Parts: sequence; C-alpha cells; structure tokens
Amino acid sequence: MDLAPRIASALEAAVSRMESGGGPPRLAAAIRYAIFPTGALVRPRLSLIVALASGDDDPALADAAAAALEMLHCGSLVHDDLPCFDDASTRRNRPALHRAFGQREAVLAGDALIALAFDTVARASARHPERAAALGRCLADALLPPGGIIAGQAWECEPVSEISAYQRAKTGALFVAAAMAGAIASGSNPLVWRTLGERLGEAYQVADDIRDVAAREEEIGKPVGRDAALGRPNAVASYGMAKAVARFETLIEQAIASIPACGGRGLLQKLIRAEAVRLVPEEYLERAA
Amino acid sequence: MDLAPRIASALEAAVSRMESGGGPPRLAAAIRYAIFPTGALVRPRLSLIVALASGDDDPALADAAAAALEMLHCGSLVHDDLPCFDDASTRRNRPALHRAFGQREAVLAGDALIALAFDTVARASARHPERAAALGRCLADALLPPGGIIAGQAWECEPVSEISAYQRAKTGALFVAAAMAGAIASGSNPLVWRTLGERLGEAYQVADDIRDVAAREEEIGKPVGRDAALGRPNAVASYGMAKAVARFETLIEQAIASIPACGGRGLLQKLIRAEAVRLVPEEYLERAA
Repeated sequence: MDLAPRIASALEAAVSRMESGGGPPRLAAAIRYAIFPTGALVRPRLSLIVALASGDDDPALADAAAAALEMLHCGSLVHDDLPCFDDASTRRNRPALHRAFGQREAVLAGDALIALAFDTVARASARHPERAAALGRCLADALLPPGGIIAGQAWECEPVSEISAYQRAKTGALFVAAAMAGAIASGSNPLVWRTLGERLGEAYQVADDIRDVAAREEEIGKPVGRDAALGRPNAVASYGMAKAVARFETLIEQAIASIPACGGRGLLQKLIRAEAVRLVPEEYLERAA
Repeated sequence: MDLAPRIASALEAAVSRMESGGGPPRLAAAIRYAIFPTGALVRPRLSLIVALASGDDDPALADAAAAALEMLHCGSLVHDDLPCFDDASTRRNRPALHRAFGQREAVLAGDALIALAFDTVARASARHPERAAALGRCLADALLPPGGIIAGQAWECEPVSEISAYQRAKTGALFVAAAMAGAIASGSNPLVWRTLGERLGEAYQVADDIRDVAAREEEIGKPVGRDAALGRPNAVASYGMAKAVARFETLIEQAIASIPACGGRGLLQKLIRAEAVRLVPEEYLERAA
C-alpha cells in the first residue's frame, strides 16, 4: 500500500493554490522548493496509517491533515536552516532554501507554510466541520509551547536547556500530532494513538543521531557530523553505537505494542516495522560496527 | 464603549498559556513582549465593532477572533523588523524584539504568534464548531498569497513589485480579515463587511504614509521618514500632503457609507469616525500644513 501518492497530491493542491491568483512569484517558488521534491514523508505516512486504521471515513480530510503535518515539518526545516540557527548550506542534496532564495524569502516561506497547514485542514473540513477545531488545536500543539517544535527550537536558545524536553518537543511533537491528526480526521479518538507517536518520535530522534554518525552525506542529503560540530546531544556519542541501536529497536517494539485494537492491526504492525527499516537501513549499522 | 479590555483579556489568556506548562521561558517572554503593552488595537477593535453590529451572539469567540488578528499583526511586525527586512531598531518606543531578545527568538516568536492566532480561534469555537473552519480560512487568507500580509511583505523582495497589490496585501489584508472575522465569529455573513475592511485598510495605509512624514518619533514609537530611507512608496511623497489628506478623508467616508444595514448603524458610523481621528490626529495635519 503506497501512501505517497495521496500525500503528494494533497501537497500539490495546496502549493498550486499559492502559485495562482497573481501573488508574488518568487515566494510561490520558494514554497514549492521547501516541499518538492518531497522527503521521506515519514510524518504524513504515519498520519495516513492511523487514519486508515481508524476507518478513513473522510479521505480528503485525512490527506489534508497528513499534508499539513509535512508542511509544518518542511517550514520548520527552512527556519532551522537560517544563518541565525544552524546556518545549514544544504538540505535534501540541494542548497538550503535561504541559499537558493535569500533569507527574506526563507523567513516568509516558513511563515507561509505554517499558515498553509492550518488553511489546508480548514478547507478540507467541509464534510465534517466539527473536526476542524480539533485538527487546528492538534497542529497548534505540535508547534507551540510547552511541547511543540517552536518550543523545541527555542530550547536551543535558552541559557538552561532541558535536554529531554528539548528532544521531545523538537522531534516528538510532530510524530504525536501526526498520529493524533490521523485519528481526528477520521472521527476517531486521538488519545489512544498518542503513545505510538511518542515512541516513534523518540525512535526517529535516535535514528537521526545514528545517521548523523553513520550515514554518508549523499545518502541523507545534508551534512553529517553536525551534532558534534554544533555541540548538540547525540545518543551515539553519549552511549555508543551498540546501545543506541538497541534503544532504537526497543522503541520500535514499544511503538508496535502500543497500537490499539483496530481493523488491520497486523498490517499496521508490518507497516511500522517497514518504516523502521527505512529509518535505519542495515548498511548504516554494518558500516558503524 | 471601550472595547480594549475585551481584547486585552483575550490576548492575556493566550499569552499566559504560552508561559505555563514548563516551556522555554525566554520564548514565552518574547511572545509577551511582542503583544504587550498593546498598540492601538486598530484591527481587533474593527473586528469587535463588526461582531457587535452582527449580534455578538458568542462574545468569547468574537474576542478570540479579534485577539487572533492582533497576534497576526504583532507577529508580522516582529518578522518585518528583522535585519534581513527593515532592520528596525525601535518599535512602540522600545527596542525592536530582535534587539531585545536576539534574532533567533524573534523568528520563533513570530512563528509562534501565527500558530497562536489559529489556536486561539480553534479553542474558542466549542459552542459554534461550524465557525472554526471559516475563521481558520479567514486568518489564512489574511496571511497567504495571493493577497495576505506574507505576500505583501514578499512583494518587497520581488524583482518586479506591483505597488497596488503590495499595499493591498501589506496593509489591507488584515483590515479585511478583521471585518470579516467579526461577522463570522457572530454567525453572520462576512461578505457584506468586506468593503468596510478594504476602505479602512487603504485609509490606514495613507494615514501611515502621513504619519511617516508628519509625526514625531515619540508619538508613533518608531522612527519616522522610513519610507524615504527605504525607497518605499508613500502617498505624501507621490501626491503631496493636501491630496493625501483628501484621499484619506474620502476613504473614511466610503468606509462609513459601506456599512450595511444593521443594528446600531449610526453608532457604528460614529465609532469609525472616531477611529479615523485616532489614526490621523489634527496636529499632524496642522504641523504639515
């Protein structure tokens, strides 16, 4: 079951809207550059997987919610790459957006992607207006203090930074929101999916740490060794590769175990395991061994 | 009828939420700094005036919508003041936010205020969930291309900038959204209020041009003469002070004439006239004469 076409089509519809109507063309091009070609779509895939497990009774709304999560993710990457933060030169094997379009367009494209995420779910909720507010709040929680990604990024600027709150907010928030948004979009209870999002978010953080140490730049499309260079916490640096990998595998097992009773629970477990292999391919582990 | 306490109270509730729950304290302080002490509250006042004229059947939602408009306005000022845009040193008689908290907090506080605006209307729409999506779309239209304030700011970065589209988007979009959001929050038809928002937005742009030429820095809390310094269009520079003032007065009359039949139309007309005097006090005109 390939979910990418549903996600890409919802993203394309939203980005196309930014290109029509006579708005500023470079801003529209910057928004498209931030989204396309798409990355691994890890968060929107999770959202759609949960929507399917929850009955997927409004596929257009589920697609919109999934696309909204990807917009928030891409928008945060654009702002995080700015010179005042990570000053990243490359992203997805291309110049970072501010290198390609300038800092001003990067600030504005990141702003626009936040608004576009909320706009996308609001526009898609005509059939189920009562889900609009819940989805709006879910997206806002994923961004705002105390636990959203803007708070996560802000912890990097605070004199006393709390590492666990930082990582939960910086990476976990969008996974939790992805899982919950998939349920909300399908009229289902989002709370039973929270643990799945939390465990996958933490696993993804450990996987990112492993990639930062073990992957090659061309494999992940951005420089490696950034955590060491920027003095950021990294699970491999802290505990060693073997323990980091064991931690990753434990988190994936906990994520799978947390899946609530639902139609196709077995298929869902297989999908999550496939995502895990995608996150940390065998060759990284062999290379690091 | 003093509308400021309703607006301030809704803003305070939202900002307080950012300060609780153990999020990063400097980010919360920066968000508060962006909003308080409040400015003239021109946009949220307009929103509440329209809500009152539309029956104000859900005051908490009307207050939330008004506060959301002010958040979008304040968030855009924070980003517009950044070094890569206007590089403004002062705002509201204090250091601009990036001077007080640093560029990183300024980027994040501006991001947070966009999300907080959507969050605030989503949270307040429990009694009327069917209004949540319409309010979300109204806020998004005020921000996004083709006509929102992010597009307006982007026109400053485009090689060929279209002046009228630029001004409509840069200033008019939030006035149109303010008028329409007041109607939506009260379950009323927003379209009949569109012209009021458009004319007031254009009048405000002309007033801003007049202030940039005729006001003193301490009166408006930010440097004057910025349009000339930054090479931006200014109605006084283009047509002279007398024609700019005449244009302002015509726009205010058109705004007043556009008010649809509604309860308290006379009071509403008086309120709009009072706002006009607040925007361009007599002494600026005498000084410039």
